[in-house]
Amino acid sequence: MTDTLLSSPTREVRIGFDQPFVIIGERINPTGRKILAEEMKNGDYSRVVSDALAQVAAGATMLDVNAGIPLADEPGILAEAIRLVQSVTDVPLSIDSSIVAALEAGLEVYQGKPLLNSVTGEDERLEQVLPLVARHGCAVVAISNDEAGISENPDERFDVARKIVHRAADHGIHHSNIVVDPLVMPVGAVNSAGRQVLHLVKRLREELKVNTTCGASNFSFGIPNRKGMDGHFLSMVIGSGMTSAITNPLHESVMQGVMAADVVMGHDSNCARWLRKYRQAPEKSGEPGAGVGAGRTGRRRRRK
Amino acid sequence: MTDTLLSSPTREVRIGFDQPFVIIGERINPTGRKILAEEMKNGDYSRVVSDALAQVAAGATMLDVNAGIPLADEPGILAEAIRLVQSVTDVPLSIDSSIVAALEAGLEVYQGKPLLNSVTGEDERLEQVLPLVARHGCAVVAISNDEAGISENPDERFDVARKIVHRAADHGIHHSNIVVDPLVMPVGAVNSAGRQVLHLVKRLREELKVNTTCGASNFSFGIPNRKGMDGHFLSMVIGSGMTSAITNPLHESVMQGVMAADVVMGHDSNCARWLRKYRQAPEKSGEPGAGVGAGRTGRRRRRK
Repeated sequence: MTDTLLSSPTREVRIGFDQPFVIIGERINPTGRKILAEEMKNGDYSRVVSDALAQVAAGATMLDVNAGIPLADEPGILAEAIRLVQSVTDVPLSIDSSIVAALEAGLEVYQGKPLLNSVTGEDERLEQVLPLVARHGCAVVAISNDEAGISENPDERFDVARKIVHRAADHGIHHSNIVVDPLVMPVGAVNSAGRQVLHLVKRLREELKVNTTCGASNFSFGIPNRKGMDGHFLSMVIGSGMTSAITNPLHESVMQGVMAADVVMGHDSNCARWLRKYRQAPEKSGEPGAGVGAGRTGRRRRRK
Repeated sequence: MTDTLLSSPTREVRIGFDQPFVIIGERINPTGRKILAEEMKNGDYSRVVSDALAQVAAGATMLDVNAGIPLADEPGILAEAIRLVQSVTDVPLSIDSSIVAALEAGLEVYQGKPLLNSVTGEDERLEQVLPLVARHGCAVVAISNDEAGISENPDERFDVARKIVHRAADHGIHHSNIVVDPLVMPVGAVNSAGRQVLHLVKRLREELKVNTTCGASNFSFGIPNRKGMDGHFLSMVIGSGMTSAITNPLHESVMQGVMAADVVMGHDSNCARWLRKYRQAPEKSGEPGAGVGAGRTGRRRRRK
C-alpha cells in the first residue's frame, strides 16, 4: 500500500492503492489552445480561473497548471497562474513544465505540497529536477522515456521508471513521492497499447510499489468516439491498479468511467458518490434487462 | 490459453482468453416478461424470433434461450423456441433451464454444439447434468453455488467452481468445456462485489484455466444509472480476464463497453470493429482535450 500525499494550505489529497481515483484536471494548458495562450501571454488569467473552478465543480481532485507558450516568460506566467488558481480553489496542484526554471518559479510560490510534472529518465533532467523535489519536499511525476525517446517495448519503459525511482532514492526521495506515467500509446498506431498499459501498471505497482498516472486521452488519439473510449480506457486501467490520471473532468464519459470504477473497486463506500450524482436523474427508458438479471441470482438463491 | 468451442450448423464461436469477448444475448427469457411468457405459453413465438434477430443485429455473438414459465410445458416450449431461433439465425445458442428435462429436450433438437446453462455445485444437479454434457459433447455453464446457496465469501465460491471442474473431469469432460459463472453480487448490497469478481476471474483463469461468464446486470441491481454502470462493469471485468457475459446487446452502453474493452485488450485488430461502428457518426462537440493529449506524448518525443 503506497500513498502519495499532496496538499494545499487547507486540503490533503492522497493518491493511493486503496484510495478513490485521483483526477488531475488537464484543462489549464495553452498547448493547442490558441486563445488561452494569447490571453495568458497578455496577463489575462480570467480563463485560467474559470477553467479551474469548472474542473473542480465537475469533480477534479487536483489541477494541472501548464504555461508552455512559445516565446513567452514561462516561469513568470506559470507562477502567476499558480498563485491565482490557489487563491480561488483549495485542491492541490500539479506544476507542469518542461522548463526547469518554470518548475522552480512554480515551486517558489506554491503553498502546500504540490506534484511536480515532470522528470524523465534523461540523466540531465534527473540531475536538474530531483534536487528540486528533494529540497521542496514535493512529489514528482516520472515519465518513462529517456535520451533514446519513448521505447515501444513496455518493459524498456518499465526499466526507465525503475532507473528514475533508484536515482530518486539516491537523492533521498521516497518511492511514495514518485508517480510514474508509463506512457500511453495511441491504439490506432499500436494495437497492443492497451495491454501494454495494463501490464505496466501491474509491474509498477508490484515491483516498484509506486503510484501511477497517465495522459488518458492519448490512447484514443486518431480513432472516432474518443470520449466513449476514454471513459472505458480509464475504468479499465483503474481496474488494473492505476491510481490517477491527467484528464478532462468536464467530459461526462470520463467522470462516469472514473466514478463507476471507484464503485467496482470498492472505493466509493456504499456507492455514496454514485448515488449522489445519479439518483436525481431517473433513466429515460425502462430497464427490460433488470428483471432477468435480478431473476438470475434470485432463482439460484431460491434453490437452497 | 483455453478456448471453448461452440457451434451452429454453419458457424463456430470461440470463448477464449485471446478471443474477442462473447456476448450471449439474454433477452429470450420470459422471467419478468409477462407478455413474452403468455405468448410462448400460447405457442406464439413471433417475439422470440424478433428478439433473436434484433440481438444478433446489435452484436450478440450467441443467444441464450430460456422458457421458464410457471405451470407450462417447459421442455416442449424450450425445444420449439430453439428450433425456431436456429431456423432464423446462425449464432450458437445457450440452452437455459433449471429443469433437467427441459435441458434434455433442448439438446435433442439443437443442431451443432451448444452451451448448456447450467450446472451448479449441488451433488444431485451435478449427477443429472454432467452425464448429459458428456453424452452430447456440449459445453456447460458452471454456477458457483451449492446446497448451501451462494456464499458471500468469493473463495468459497471458487471452491465450488473447482469441485464442479473436478467432478466434470470424472465424467470425461475437459475443463475447456466448462464456463464458470463466479456469481456477481449487487454492489448496492455488497460493497466489495466488484473486487470479488475481479479476484475470482483471475483465480479461475490462472488456477482452473477455465473461461468465465456472468449475468452482468446483477452488479447494478438497486442503484441508479444501471446501464452506465453495466457498461463499465463489463469493460473492467473483461480487463480482468472475463471471456463472456449473458447480457443485453440492445443496450448501447453495454455494447460500447464490450467493444472498447476488445480494443484495449488488443482483440479488435486495427480497431476495425470500433471504426466500423463509430466512424460514420462524428462527435457532436469539439475535442478540446485532443490537442493536450496528443501534445503530451508529442512534446516528450521531440526531446530525443
